[in-house]
Amino acid sequence: MTTLAITGGQVLHPDITVSRADVLIDQDSGEILEIGADLAGDADETLDASDSLVTPGFANGHSHVAMTLLRGVADDKPLDAWLQEDIWPVEAELTAEDIRVGTELGILEMIKSGTTAFSDMYFEVDEIAAVVEEAGVRAVLGHTAITVGKDDDGAHADLEQSLEVAIDLDGAADGRISTTFQPHSLTTVGGEYLEEYVPKAREAGLPIHFHANETEHEVSPIVDEHGVRPLEYAVEKGLLESEDFIAHGVHVDETEIELLAETGASVIHCPASNMKLASGMAPVQQLRDAGVTVGLGTDGAASNNDLSMLDEARDAAMIGKLAADDASAVPADAVAEMMTQGSADAMGLESGRLEAGAPADLAVIDLETPHLTPRHDLVSHLAYAAAAADVKHTICDGQVLMRDREVLTLDAQAVRERAQETAESLLSRANSA
Amino acid sequence: MTTLAITGGQVLHPDITVSRADVLIDQDSGEILEIGADLAGDADETLDASDSLVTPGFANGHSHVAMTLLRGVADDKPLDAWLQEDIWPVEAELTAEDIRVGTELGILEMIKSGTTAFSDMYFEVDEIAAVVEEAGVRAVLGHTAITVGKDDDGAHADLEQSLEVAIDLDGAADGRISTTFQPHSLTTVGGEYLEEYVPKAREAGLPIHFHANETEHEVSPIVDEHGVRPLEYAVEKGLLESEDFIAHGVHVDETEIELLAETGASVIHCPASNMKLASGMAPVQQLRDAGVTVGLGTDGAASNNDLSMLDEARDAAMIGKLAADDASAVPADAVAEMMTQGSADAMGLESGRLEAGAPADLAVIDLETPHLTPRHDLVSHLAYAAAAADVKHTICDGQVLMRDREVLTLDAQAVRERAQETAESLLSRANSA
Repeated sequence: MTTLAITGGQVLHPDITVSRADVLIDQDSGEILEIGADLAGDADETLDASDSLVTPGFANGHSHVAMTLLRGVADDKPLDAWLQEDIWPVEAELTAEDIRVGTELGILEMIKSGTTAFSDMYFEVDEIAAVVEEAGVRAVLGHTAITVGKDDDGAHADLEQSLEVAIDLDGAADGRISTTFQPHSLTTVGGEYLEEYVPKAREAGLPIHFHANETEHEVSPIVDEHGVRPLEYAVEKGLLESEDFIAHGVHVDETEIELLAETGASVIHCPASNMKLASGMAPVQQLRDAGVTVGLGTDGAASNNDLSMLDEARDAAMIGKLAADDASAVPADAVAEMMTQGSADAMGLESGRLEAGAPADLAVIDLETPHLTPRHDLVSHLAYAAAAADVKHTICDGQVLMRDREVLTLDAQAVRERAQETAESLLSRANSA
Repeated sequence: MTTLAITGGQVLHPDITVSRADVLIDQDSGEILEIGADLAGDADETLDASDSLVTPGFANGHSHVAMTLLRGVADDKPLDAWLQEDIWPVEAELTAEDIRVGTELGILEMIKSGTTAFSDMYFEVDEIAAVVEEAGVRAVLGHTAITVGKDDDGAHADLEQSLEVAIDLDGAADGRISTTFQPHSLTTVGGEYLEEYVPKAREAGLPIHFHANETEHEVSPIVDEHGVRPLEYAVEKGLLESEDFIAHGVHVDETEIELLAETGASVIHCPASNMKLASGMAPVQQLRDAGVTVGLGTDGAASNNDLSMLDEARDAAMIGKLAADDASAVPADAVAEMMTQGSADAMGLESGRLEAGAPADLAVIDLETPHLTPRHDLVSHLAYAAAAADVKHTICDGQVLMRDREVLTLDAQAVRERAQETAESLLSRANSA
């Protein structure tokens, strides 16, 4: 057994309290052996966490990670125009190689900001999986299927691919990759296709990850056509089982909140994207009060524009209060929970809580900075004041992915240079198309 | 003449475009001599800005800088309860020495995040001025007067002090300190006192900085008692001349927006504080459309919880869109303008624009990071993706305050240690009081 001890830190426990403790990890199994006092003893390796906060690695519950290539390409536009005029035309030019390069950049940024797991919706998923394998993170992957604008053969092919990719990749990268079936949304996949494919996904044991109720434009067409709210419609189509999770859930009414609570399906809240696209404010405090599992996600870098879960946590606490018109809503401990166990639970991962037997996925945050001084309340610092650059070490599956800000599994400079060249070439192709 | 050249960077120009240029500075006068190609030539000193964005130093238009000591002390509470139950009891225990230590911490954090000027409302202002002098930043200072809860003698004494401090400190620190007269707000300073003291401030040539329309609780009492909106009442009391600026302006109606435009008074928008205290969303796009000068401020660290203007910029762009229900509102170039020239103009400073003859107040932002890759649009990166830790060099009044992340004018570790000890002692006194 090869062991790693993370020593001297302040540990965020599953009940969202913080105390001094060491963390002992079995690097062979990738699990936490023990959390307690003086565990450095005979560890094969130690990682210094003095003057640091040791948290579960952050879990990014909803991303389109390769979209880092489009960071800053089309800001300040609403969702529909942004997708149709800017994003989809560029995405149409994306090659498998582009997606690999964009994924490298996104995963590099995530490791540098303490994120150890992400749940992605995109295409060319083999490329994404290859980077996950190389970089050492955990991921819940899938191919996102859309049927609108396609003929029946094309629609079937896309949905079949979503099923096949999810079945093929499940368990890849030594078990660090799991998968979901991914109908893009309730308005971009026809009801007849949901009726055909949702049972197939259930048969294959696949959780389902889809966009829902992000904007009013995703609500009114369903209410108009089917006479029910989108999440009622989702249940009619066999969606919203307990392992499923929706992205956004901005425009959910009380009936739908109740439905989420009853079914046990989870919501990934993406506050930055919801603000940037003026989609609205999700009723996060109401969802939590109803017992719904809420995680946090960055969405793609084109609508954020970064992939730091620490930014997302602060954003969630901030607009959670505006949405509830109550400064006590979505407090610091709630976002600390959402960015770790909330997302992990939604994604079907065992990470998210630092305890013996759990996956050794951790972030170590340096507290020796002016903006984290004084140290009255480290949970408050995690929610409101800590930033990506404060993350000192990132560990996933027992392996050190970043030590003292140096990412060990990816060549940061080469990744950035490839990303710059690839993004320039992509935009030049899209502009001349 | 001693000269400093900032070489190799991408410069943010006053029209919020970016291009390659060097910046040549006269360190004796503290002014920019020239912006253009190949200016390194005979400069006495050079500062490398390759792969970097060179911006005006950020101007923090509304702060209570010593409140860094209370960072994380009382999160997740609404403004009134937060002030009355948590903040004011602790502030009652603050000594002059505490305020000096808290100010050191706040200015250290500001220099590290590229802020070169701040406009502060607090007390024990001599202590604050001493740290400004030492640290090398620019500041608009003042003593904040409150009359509610005081007898007539106490009220007069407080207002006299606000006048005297502003008169005495104006021009201190080799001209880096200017001052304002500071009635705390329209509900915490009685109308009869405004009538007496506003003319005295005018006579002394002092701009006036006050809180206005932050929450509904600052609006309805004035409407109820005086039958006019708060800013109409302000004008009746002689406030809102063109050199004046209000903090917040969240709950302003169309009449008040028009009044701000007519008078030329400015608004300092504090989005993080407004979200965290659930105060509401200022109509920033409407204010800008009406021609009102809008700057950005962090407010105190207890309601934010950091002092990074880069966070504030992102927050402003984000909730500006929600407030307008329009993703094109408060775009990237608007926040780039607000965090530099908007705040500087509001504060009566000549900084805020990089051009020959302007004060040499600058921030240099390192772009060689994953989250600022690729470089499609550097104004977008400034607004949405850059973070405090990306600031590499900070220059104020021609002097280098931070070089390669090392602050040269304050001992960072000593400041943090003093702040930790001071904050612990302060809370222990407050808890036993």
